[in-house]
Amino acid sequence: MEKLVALTKRRGFIFQSSELYGGVNGAWDYGPLGVELKRNVKDAWWKAMVRDREDVVGLDSAILMHPMVWRASGHVANFADPMIDCKKCKKRYRVDEIQPDYEETGIVPTQCPDPKCKGELTPARKFNLMFETVLGPVADSANKTFLRPETAQGIFANFINVTNSTRIKVPFGIAQVGKSFRNEINPRNFTFRSREFEQMEMEFFCKPGSDDQWFEYWVEERKKWYASLGIKMEKLRFRAHDKEKLSHYSKATTDVEYQFPFGWGELEGIANRTDFDLRAHQIGMRSVGRWKGEELQDFQLVDEDPEFAGGKLSYFDEEEKRRYIPYVIEPAAGADRATLAFLCDAYDEDDAGGEVRVVLRLHPRLAPVKAAILPLVKKEGMPERARKLYDALKKRWPVVYDESAAVGRRYRRQDEIGTPFCFTIDGDTMKDGTVTMRERDSMKQERVSEDAVVRLVEERLEG
Amino acid sequence: MEKLVALTKRRGFIFQSSELYGGVNGAWDYGPLGVELKRNVKDAWWKAMVRDREDVVGLDSAILMHPMVWRASGHVANFADPMIDCKKCKKRYRVDEIQPDYEETGIVPTQCPDPKCKGELTPARKFNLMFETVLGPVADSANKTFLRPETAQGIFANFINVTNSTRIKVPFGIAQVGKSFRNEINPRNFTFRSREFEQMEMEFFCKPGSDDQWFEYWVEERKKWYASLGIKMEKLRFRAHDKEKLSHYSKATTDVEYQFPFGWGELEGIANRTDFDLRAHQIGMRSVGRWKGEELQDFQLVDEDPEFAGGKLSYFDEEEKRRYIPYVIEPAAGADRATLAFLCDAYDEDDAGGEVRVVLRLHPRLAPVKAAILPLVKKEGMPERARKLYDALKKRWPVVYDESAAVGRRYRRQDEIGTPFCFTIDGDTMKDGTVTMRERDSMKQERVSEDAVVRLVEERLEG
Repeated sequence: MEKLVALTKRRGFIFQSSELYGGVNGAWDYGPLGVELKRNVKDAWWKAMVRDREDVVGLDSAILMHPMVWRASGHVANFADPMIDCKKCKKRYRVDEIQPDYEETGIVPTQCPDPKCKGELTPARKFNLMFETVLGPVADSANKTFLRPETAQGIFANFINVTNSTRIKVPFGIAQVGKSFRNEINPRNFTFRSREFEQMEMEFFCKPGSDDQWFEYWVEERKKWYASLGIKMEKLRFRAHDKEKLSHYSKATTDVEYQFPFGWGELEGIANRTDFDLRAHQIGMRSVGRWKGEELQDFQLVDEDPEFAGGKLSYFDEEEKRRYIPYVIEPAAGADRATLAFLCDAYDEDDAGGEVRVVLRLHPRLAPVKAAILPLVKKEGMPERARKLYDALKKRWPVVYDESAAVGRRYRRQDEIGTPFCFTIDGDTMKDGTVTMRERDSMKQERVSEDAVVRLVEERLEG
Repeated sequence: MEKLVALTKRRGFIFQSSELYGGVNGAWDYGPLGVELKRNVKDAWWKAMVRDREDVVGLDSAILMHPMVWRASGHVANFADPMIDCKKCKKRYRVDEIQPDYEETGIVPTQCPDPKCKGELTPARKFNLMFETVLGPVADSANKTFLRPETAQGIFANFINVTNSTRIKVPFGIAQVGKSFRNEINPRNFTFRSREFEQMEMEFFCKPGSDDQWFEYWVEERKKWYASLGIKMEKLRFRAHDKEKLSHYSKATTDVEYQFPFGWGELEGIANRTDFDLRAHQIGMRSVGRWKGEELQDFQLVDEDPEFAGGKLSYFDEEEKRRYIPYVIEPAAGADRATLAFLCDAYDEDDAGGEVRVVLRLHPRLAPVKAAILPLVKKEGMPERARKLYDALKKRWPVVYDESAAVGRRYRRQDEIGTPFCFTIDGDTMKDGTVTMRERDSMKQERVSEDAVVRLVEERLEG
């Protein structure tokens, strides 16, 4: 992992945020290559989840939402970790960090775990993981809101808008890619657990009763997606949650986990959220008129008729001639986590003629640079000829031109950033119009016609 | 404008954020068509500014940065509006709203402008436009930070990382697309002035002395970009700021303004930021060790040697064999504003056989849907034939299939969302393999071969 972190910094994939001021814990910047890699991951998701389908539409909702959204969704009440303070040294701890069995046993530690302090601890209290901020110039509780901790609620909040403005019918999905924020106490494992991160979430609305089938369908679809981008399937597992450990909103959840160097980590959760969220917002909408800006913790939602299915967030099924609140299957993936998994999966070291070669075996669709064009020497018309080929490829894809250093060294540079193909222009090119095509993974070289290069790259990228 | 706002809501371009809870002032959601339109605007920018060039690389930095970034950049001290409170009714006003000449005269109003109140006003004080939040569980001033009010500082903060991890040389640019946040007192004009918005910013680093030339170059480049996407040039103007009205960091600024229905509004500012920002962060870096978490307002940056050009943020020019702090030309555009300008520019009503036709004359590259495939009737094999054509197009572009209602009405639906081409499958198609190609702007119809459709669309999109 240290090697990968060093490589990503050295070659411009990922930097620590605000490094020149000592860094910010839990926030990361994507450099010139990283921004292209992550963009490719997000585009591949969007293509599979929206573009290639007829039953899913896209959305891009705001990070700043009405605070009642988070009251209705349950985040104000439940999205919290139990914390404890030392009365003597004033340090703050997550309870389960000092008492790992806290959740099962309820046992609260009483003394500061710092052996130099051993001070008395306060009772445990909940610390909400949502970042707070204030909208507008007046800092009262009516203007206090949160940075969204998930993009999903922006989708639920637009359920009516989407059904009113399109002719899409249940079963259908709404997909969104965007930033979310969680004030993690302890960000860790590089970009894996950070405070600012990007999600790729889709909420699929279906008829109650068809939800189990759709759940299975989406677990399969998501498996296919990771496979299609070349991830090692033995490092991927699909772990169904035990019934008794499910979130309060979920009927079934399967986590997609990847075996990172630091252990198995969740890339995506596929959940049957039932009608929990739409029902919650229906109750929220009915209650909002009573809210006068008091603290949200103290505000009670009015659930006049919990079984009422005829409200604004219900759906009229024209085939069945009846109203219902749709059930929701949610495949919710992390864009940063998927990017990190693809990087870890691609990282390899092998033996290239006696020396260690570092290579990123990224799927060509994910590779930030698709090809490198290399004149063998900086003379005899080779640079000009190489530039011509470079220009032709650059119209279509991100490619690089590199004329400095020995060609072997230039191949290594490209291997290290995952460029799948190199094309070398040499003396023979000037005679017969062929170039050397060198393949990253096998290091195999073959002569191909200059005129065939664009088509060859196209085939490998789309095949 | 009201017509456009209604259209964008009805057809799923733009919704108010959290509408079901009464909305959030200054935040907007992009619906199924809006997300594609805005994505096309951003992709066109990225293509022109990064992909098609060799001297610009991309970046995606975090929204949450170290608070010292905003101290060094001048935002903590200067990014503020003067505000005033009424002691009687407790309302808060921006001073220049009740005293428009405040900035020139310094005259501060003394009585509440509400005729029913007329209470005494407090002295004016600065209200910072940055949203505050707290990182981590402890809410002390060392952990207080801001949501970035511009993406530019994320670029400056990565200047060293980018030059260290790539082989790019001055002059070069770093480009970024991402969300920024400003706590506007009075968000207005639809998506034009909002609290959460997306920027497309590029910082172009060049040798001091070459900056005036590069400034002119980028003004021209940006003009070409808007023109290439078909904006009406008579509605676009380039307004150079008077020397005495320039921001503290700028040597020259030209605003790109569009004539919206509500008046001229800024789409983009092109500024010669000199070496202000890199120099500021160099001073900030030297000072950060002294900062113990006191309020940033009270913390003084230590400018030991303001002329010192050999610091960490200087650049060693290998050709000139000397170190300097590069000058910066910044074309900073708003993605939401550009999207709104393209929408306003495209909106048209014309006469189509006696009735008013609403049409969005969007550039084909920006149109969210590229083509619609319409079987004339729902029988005689036409739907199947149309689906075949639809499938071939859908592999490449977002297209729709529509078989409901009279074909004239289906054309109108497509006109309203800006679909540049419709292809109708009719009786003749079944006989001779030709389809009707109907063009949005001219409403001209011509027969083309089914087999030529993919190529025709490709030509129009890329031509």
